[in-house]
Amino acid sequence: MGGLPMARIRVAIINVTGYVGADLARILVRHPNVEIRSVTGRSEVGKKVGEVFPHLSQLDLTIESETADVDLVFCALPHKASAEAVIPLLKKGVRVVDTSADFRLKDPQEYQHWYEYAHPAPDALSRAVYGLPELHHEEIRNAQLVANPGCYPTSAILALAPAVKAGIVEGPIIVDAKSGVSGSGRTLNLASHFSEVNENVAAYGLKGHRHLPEISQELNALSKLGPLSLTFLPHLIPMTRGMLSSCYSRLNTGVTPRAENAEAEIRAMYKAFYAKSPFVQVVDYPPQTKYTLGSNMCLVHPAVDQRTGTLIVISCLDNLVKGAAGQAIQNMNIMMGFPEASGIDMLPLYP
Amino acid sequence: MGGLPMARIRVAIINVTGYVGADLARILVRHPNVEIRSVTGRSEVGKKVGEVFPHLSQLDLTIESETADVDLVFCALPHKASAEAVIPLLKKGVRVVDTSADFRLKDPQEYQHWYEYAHPAPDALSRAVYGLPELHHEEIRNAQLVANPGCYPTSAILALAPAVKAGIVEGPIIVDAKSGVSGSGRTLNLASHFSEVNENVAAYGLKGHRHLPEISQELNALSKLGPLSLTFLPHLIPMTRGMLSSCYSRLNTGVTPRAENAEAEIRAMYKAFYAKSPFVQVVDYPPQTKYTLGSNMCLVHPAVDQRTGTLIVISCLDNLVKGAAGQAIQNMNIMMGFPEASGIDMLPLYP
Amino acid sequence: MGGLPMARIRVAIINVTGYVGADLARILVRHPNVEIRSVTGRSEVGKKVGEVFPHLSQLDLTIESETADVDLVFCALPHKASAEAVIPLLKKGVRVVDTSADFRLKDPQEYQHWYEYAHPAPDALSRAVYGLPELHHEEIRNAQLVANPGCYPTSAILALAPAVKAGIVEGPIIVDAKSGVSGSGRTLNLASHFSEVNENVAAYGLKGHRHLPEISQELNALSKLGPLSLTFLPHLIPMTRGMLSSCYSRLNTGVTPRAENAEAEIRAMYKAFYAKSPFVQVVDYPPQTKYTLGSNMCLVHPAVDQRTGTLIVISCLDNLVKGAAGQAIQNMNIMMGFPEASGIDMLPLYP
Amino acid sequence: MGGLPMARIRVAIINVTGYVGADLARILVRHPNVEIRSVTGRSEVGKKVGEVFPHLSQLDLTIESETADVDLVFCALPHKASAEAVIPLLKKGVRVVDTSADFRLKDPQEYQHWYEYAHPAPDALSRAVYGLPELHHEEIRNAQLVANPGCYPTSAILALAPAVKAGIVEGPIIVDAKSGVSGSGRTLNLASHFSEVNENVAAYGLKGHRHLPEISQELNALSKLGPLSLTFLPHLIPMTRGMLSSCYSRLNTGVTPRAENAEAEIRAMYKAFYAKSPFVQVVDYPPQTKYTLGSNMCLVHPAVDQRTGTLIVISCLDNLVKGAAGQAIQNMNIMMGFPEASGIDMLPLYP
Repeated sequence: MGGLPMARIRVAIINVTGYVGADLARILVRHPNVEIRSVTGRSEVGKKVGEVFPHLSQLDLTIESETADVDLVFCALPHKASAEAVIPLLKKGVRVVDTSADFRLKDPQEYQHWYEYAHPAPDALSRAVYGLPELHHEEIRNAQLVANPGCYPTSAILALAPAVKAGIVEGPIIVDAKSGVSGSGRTLNLASHFSEVNENVAAYGLKGHRHLPEISQELNALSKLGPLSLTFLPHLIPMTRGMLSSCYSRLNTGVTPRAENAEAEIRAMYKAFYAKSPFVQVVDYPPQTKYTLGSNMCLVHPAVDQRTGTLIVISCLDNLVKGAAGQAIQNMNIMMGFPEASGIDMLPLYP
Repeated sequence: MGGLPMARIRVAIINVTGYVGADLARILVRHPNVEIRSVTGRSEVGKKVGEVFPHLSQLDLTIESETADVDLVFCALPHKASAEAVIPLLKKGVRVVDTSADFRLKDPQEYQHWYEYAHPAPDALSRAVYGLPELHHEEIRNAQLVANPGCYPTSAILALAPAVKAGIVEGPIIVDAKSGVSGSGRTLNLASHFSEVNENVAAYGLKGHRHLPEISQELNALSKLGPLSLTFLPHLIPMTRGMLSSCYSRLNTGVTPRAENAEAEIRAMYKAFYAKSPFVQVVDYPPQTKYTLGSNMCLVHPAVDQRTGTLIVISCLDNLVKGAAGQAIQNMNIMMGFPEASGIDMLPLYP
Repeated sequence: MGGLPMARIRVAIINVTGYVGADLARILVRHPNVEIRSVTGRSEVGKKVGEVFPHLSQLDLTIESETADVDLVFCALPHKASAEAVIPLLKKGVRVVDTSADFRLKDPQEYQHWYEYAHPAPDALSRAVYGLPELHHEEIRNAQLVANPGCYPTSAILALAPAVKAGIVEGPIIVDAKSGVSGSGRTLNLASHFSEVNENVAAYGLKGHRHLPEISQELNALSKLGPLSLTFLPHLIPMTRGMLSSCYSRLNTGVTPRAENAEAEIRAMYKAFYAKSPFVQVVDYPPQTKYTLGSNMCLVHPAVDQRTGTLIVISCLDNLVKGAAGQAIQNMNIMMGFPEASGIDMLPLYP
Repeated sequence: MGGLPMARIRVAIINVTGYVGADLARILVRHPNVEIRSVTGRSEVGKKVGEVFPHLSQLDLTIESETADVDLVFCALPHKASAEAVIPLLKKGVRVVDTSADFRLKDPQEYQHWYEYAHPAPDALSRAVYGLPELHHEEIRNAQLVANPGCYPTSAILALAPAVKAGIVEGPIIVDAKSGVSGSGRTLNLASHFSEVNENVAAYGLKGHRHLPEISQELNALSKLGPLSLTFLPHLIPMTRGMLSSCYSRLNTGVTPRAENAEAEIRAMYKAFYAKSPFVQVVDYPPQTKYTLGSNMCLVHPAVDQRTGTLIVISCLDNLVKGAAGQAIQNMNIMMGFPEASGIDMLPLYP
């Protein structure tokens, strides 16, 4: 870059009025390589961003119904609405990071099964790249459309990918995930009503949560031992931001690492796996979500329950940053050739 | 009882100054068959109970260092201290409900392994009854010493006992438990410091939690298929009271219930198992801790993940009531021939 | 009552599906003198109460659209809807405790000013009794219609009534109140959305809150010094239940109590004022809402800031119990000649 | 600065192991003009910062017992210990920002009265500058020792300074403040124990809080009407970070602004007062602490209760940023001639 300041690219945020959209705006306002040119909303059109979100009052933009011409669009709409907004952009040749689920699954049948309607642009699915930089860095660099992973899949896949790729677990795999409430979004809902959620913990999605097929798709692609048997159960806990996944699977018999020093070997293998990933830190202590609040870091801690030969991996992250907006910007950085950590190297807010 | 009011028994609470002791006092003050005659503390001796706990200002008792002569003693000391206090009481023939871990394990070697010192009264272990009324009702009736279960074991054993006894799971079993912070007690600790715990979730005890051997002991005793492989991982979440355990195990192949209607059959089997248990309710929805706050009820929800053939059982309870003080009083009711629900039929405080 | 068990009266709860209605049901289920005969809802008609509120699954009643014939009706509708439901009941001669604001203000002009429509039954206003038992015990005993006070007014009036009646404050009076979120009810609202409320505190109602005229009406009626100048500002804090009011007013110059022992004299005067009130406890320490959780107690602590000659009174209560459902049942007890504490002598749930 | 990058100054943090020290480190790590050269602790000496605070693992420094030679020292010790550490630094000519209370009060008698021992260096008091940049910008620029204000005083003084200076309030002034728990620090304490604080609100310091004399000192210095009568009452509410002060005072009679458009005039006056202050925003809506989380901004909202002629000012901030570490860095920026917002222009983390 030879001493010259890099030109800023122009970006738009579709649906800035949800939590993911607002967090995209919050982080992008301070991004050295970006100018937010345009923001849209499904409600609040015509208002200044700062009227809806006082914490963004420095962002002097009016919420519009249509996106301006820009270099890259972040689409933060819910699924279905997102595909409808993204498809015309693709045709115009605009690069897109989509934070919805619409382009995450490769198989349109699988999409139809989980989302209960036919995908509106099945052809686009094969061209979209699953935006987990730790697994798909090269493809993301060249992608026109990046499908930003869900928060649960990010935490679960990062926790399990090294073990699955190494073939040291034979399943069944259990992913027991605990999420803060902001993951449910800003739309009103009795399940996000303060008096219902506070001082409460609840499992949900026992009949199958829509984030499961993403996790399976990505882990199966890494598995040498065939498709995995995966049970995923999310829980809502009384906090705003943060997600912790506790993953369990029996270690393969006869496979290194051996019981004696299994934990050390596995941890070393995890560290090697993520050696070039600036936003995954393999740690030697059980991590807590508080160590990630507001940051783009995912902390991963593999451990071995020697009594039962079980691999336990704890991962945690901020569901709106590494689990959504931060990771979307990480993907943009890779697509645009910016330093991967540009604008997203915030330290966690503690306590 | 022929119209005559039942005489009240006299009880003492050892260590009223902890959360379990205070909750014993709170519930016993309103118990129709009990008079609290004496309370002791390791600190605060000489103060009125209401000076330490304003919510108990109606209890006109002074905290003493020695227990008065009573019909039954609740001992709410931590382990080790509890055994030292209980042994002399046993010699005097007093009936005791001990809420510590000191008399829960049958095997003194196991105790020594987990608590890291030799049990001071190994002979007493065989005479103590594990105070989970849903499994040991008859033995509790005749016991001199009842070892009140831990909060995690209560929730895990009640979730899994019917399945293990029926032989429908072959393990490995995963118990992923989430607890409110009051389970850590009133003793100061960075892990219970508000700013560290709030907006945070953390796994702990990855190297083995002391509640594990209780769970194994009780479930293995029910198992027809030999000792179970059990992984137990507790988590601390930012709420005061409440505990939810999510339990996972592969269903046996070739064993009824068959996949088609497995969930309905298993749920019916669970309901039959707990038909006579007033404080376990098998429910058709995923229960939330909020539905148990302040009550002695444990809610249990068995479900089947049909994709993977996994039994998932969610159980929840108030860790200080059914997980501690309420269950201790339930045990007392059984020991004394009072109605099992006497004094502990509080409805949950919602929201 | 001569040894004979008292017959249970039959009651109905109108709008059991809100938080106040649900808490009425929770407490009345255990009330020794009451049988809940009928519950109605504006939604959920036809469902069992336990389907809507699992914590009330013991209450074997179906939610209906019309109230059955009963001895007393609790009406827990919002204002306006409540008046419409109550007026026909009054004509039938049924006794009513109304938890809405519809019958609290004596002056229909004042009602119209604050609620922005003409009162539908201004004649009823003069016959309704303001249901604060500590001030209107005798009138409540004989009332057909009791207007249960709001939560904020209950805490503010109980904090200030003794001082105002004694004429020791000359105003202006500041009432700075902090409330848990359940006071906003079960209706969805961004201001009750978990992620918006958690880790947040906000003042609201700066242009005038509807609970202000109640406070003024009751305190002015006690004032010897003419109408008071009263500023009331409510705040929402991130907890479910609980309310604490901090009240400030300059002490009159030249009026006893004198500065030297002012605090002791004032506290003694407060204790005398509430000597016969089972649900107000004047305490010698700054009370916390946790000491009232789930109980019907209001704790009041008058103190003197000697530097400035300011009376500070802290009061706290559970906004859904003494601030709503519990106080409604206290009113019923008085109306029916039951012991005032019948069914509402629960101890606080701590911690 | 002519295109050349500004050299980084070297700073030290004394007592990095408390919450203020840790937040200084967190922010300074990203400060473009600063290199953290040295950190000390009263405990944890010899450990890496990241071992104590995983969120600071990027900071490759060992906690030492002695401070290295640096250009500026942040001292984050408690009072008394702080004075002892600062005095030798002053003698060596080092510039210091002290976050304790030791150099905030000008009058050593006042210090002795509130802190209950004689100030160890009364001479230093007159040379220290009270580090509220909105009032003392010029003095801070030239100071060797800046006494960083307390969190409560920052919020109260910023709320009231324009009104007091303009002479529009005649008192008595009531400051009712609500604080998150992190203000109590990292030292263990029953009043910061999760189960005691959660779901609770409590007033404290009724006999006089040590932050009161700071508030009085600064406001009296601005007052044209003589010393003010000020009552300050802090409250602890169940959140980690955030502080909101609600300030009340009767508007002077006969003084502009007149009742009709008083609020608009006062708000304009406030906006003018803070026109050059980048970290105070006068807002037209009642602000919430969530709008300041993690930022260095103080939001101020003056309003008029027309019924009573009372000025109500709501102010809010993050108690660890604008209330402590962020303001300390703002002071350093001014002392060093850096842009005032350098390194502290973080946007709030919402939700």
